[in-house]
Amino acid sequence: MIKIGIVGYGNLGKGIERACEVFEDMEVVGIFTRRNPEDIKAKSAVYSVDELPSFKDQIDVCLLAGGSATDLMEQGPSVLENFNTVDCYDTHAKVPEYFDKMNRIGKENGTLSLISTGWDPGLFSIQRLFSECILPKGDTYTFWGKGVSQGHSDALRRIEGVKNAIQYTIPNQDVIEKIKAGERLELSTRDKHFRECFVVLEEGADEKAITDEIVNMPNYFSDYDTTVHFISEEELSAEHQGMPHGGTVIRIGETSNGCKQNYEFSLSLDSNPEFTASVAVAYARGVHRAFKEGKTGAITVFDLPLSYLSVYTDEELRKNYI
Amino acid sequence: MIKIGIVGYGNLGKGIERACEVFEDMEVVGIFTRRNPEDIKAKSAVYSVDELPSFKDQIDVCLLAGGSATDLMEQGPSVLENFNTVDCYDTHAKVPEYFDKMNRIGKENGTLSLISTGWDPGLFSIQRLFSECILPKGDTYTFWGKGVSQGHSDALRRIEGVKNAIQYTIPNQDVIEKIKAGERLELSTRDKHFRECFVVLEEGADEKAITDEIVNMPNYFSDYDTTVHFISEEELSAEHQGMPHGGTVIRIGETSNGCKQNYEFSLSLDSNPEFTASVAVAYARGVHRAFKEGKTGAITVFDLPLSYLSVYTDEELRKNYI
Repeated sequence: MIKIGIVGYGNLGKGIERACEVFEDMEVVGIFTRRNPEDIKAKSAVYSVDELPSFKDQIDVCLLAGGSATDLMEQGPSVLENFNTVDCYDTHAKVPEYFDKMNRIGKENGTLSLISTGWDPGLFSIQRLFSECILPKGDTYTFWGKGVSQGHSDALRRIEGVKNAIQYTIPNQDVIEKIKAGERLELSTRDKHFRECFVVLEEGADEKAITDEIVNMPNYFSDYDTTVHFISEEELSAEHQGMPHGGTVIRIGETSNGCKQNYEFSLSLDSNPEFTASVAVAYARGVHRAFKEGKTGAITVFDLPLSYLSVYTDEELRKNYI
Repeated sequence: MIKIGIVGYGNLGKGIERACEVFEDMEVVGIFTRRNPEDIKAKSAVYSVDELPSFKDQIDVCLLAGGSATDLMEQGPSVLENFNTVDCYDTHAKVPEYFDKMNRIGKENGTLSLISTGWDPGLFSIQRLFSECILPKGDTYTFWGKGVSQGHSDALRRIEGVKNAIQYTIPNQDVIEKIKAGERLELSTRDKHFRECFVVLEEGADEKAITDEIVNMPNYFSDYDTTVHFISEEELSAEHQGMPHGGTVIRIGETSNGCKQNYEFSLSLDSNPEFTASVAVAYARGVHRAFKEGKTGAITVFDLPLSYLSVYTDEELRKNYI
């Protein structure tokens, strides 16, 4: 059994705990939280994150479920001093900086960290790179959704007069079909995705004014075609509690003049955090194996052979999966 | 530049030669054939395969484009005595035997072989394994087509009274949509694919008798719903000279009770041999790098980190592709 520590118990941490029930070789040693452990209801034992270092000999890999990029930039290096780690660090622009920090801490302490897994970054990073390695001449497109964007939902909830809200990112299927049919398109932000908002108003709030504020909000909505629906708190609770997501990576390559080769990868997820958690747990298996072989420092999803993620031996993989 | 030898010059060998024009770091040193080199028209220099050993210091990786599994079982070990190799060995049942043979020869001679790449086996093997590693609980389905099956086309051409023919394997889209919608199906061979035949008859041949012979042919057609069209030689030349193919790997996983996660990978290829060739050339880059690091013996697509297939440094990959 691979012994797992879960650091953080938001949606991702809960997803990791569930995933460890499905992965037969994973055992959750404990959940480590900054909150009061007594306030948390979980199947696994819950401890204060301050107690984590004392579990040094009892945990093989810590899965970092810190709620935000800010958390991880501090939490990652701190946990890595004593444990191997896997995280879903997703601030693309800061990946090199975060990697260098984790690589240094891992080398200094003889531990191993795999950063930025999940599905984007993670599986989508892999498919974008893989398709470009195979088809050097071509164009790659990524579409996200249909799915809930936490960042955009939060932006809606910060508007005065909004009681609650949820936002879905929706890919433009017409554009996707055109690309798959071989059209080469120069796409603006507005062409690729729509945004759909379900908003519960405070009593007396002005629908028209709030709609205007939403659709014109810079960075979040003004560059998109945005639809706003006003609904009741009851409807929001009944219809919009799931966290679906997904997306598509498409590369249209050309191997000789006019000879088109379409490479497409798609995810359609009932639960974004549960899927992200499952990817992270699979990579915990890989980190555990690479660490046992003597690897330390930091790595990414580009650095591990696929065989490291599997429970099967190399012989079994060749016999049953080639 | 990585110096490439192409062994065999059928459709795959031609595809490899073309691919090396698109991959900027690849240089074809020569094509090595069992035929009379003077009979072959190619952009690259053409030599008899008997001359290959004398190129030992001039070639980094030999790409084996032997026309059949029988060729490779002999050709692979023979070339590997002097060169690193990449091949598309596709007799799934004999992969372990072939691997063991190549691994032994490579270890004995200090060379490295990557076997069984392409898209199936190859990319599809990777996606089937990857999706199962991430979603241990679930079902995986593979569909092929729409595409030309050489084996089935050959079977048609062997029928008395058939002058020429081509066969397309067609996936059952209704079944694919049901699976993607979450239905768990027990599928027979007949449920998954259709077979469509375009046949040119010899003069005086009997359409009815030949149709009966086709649709009842064991192993090839009797387990499928098969359609037979009789066309002219001109129409066959005009409409059926491409070698399109493709397919889909789908895994429907469950991360908790009733929580479905759909993972889908699809290829739609204008040219099966050109795409297979491009995959093989990308893996030649990986073999070259692993060999320079001291690896010998045999490996598969499960054993190489993705970064090995890229021209970019690890720093560049982290900055631009995570």
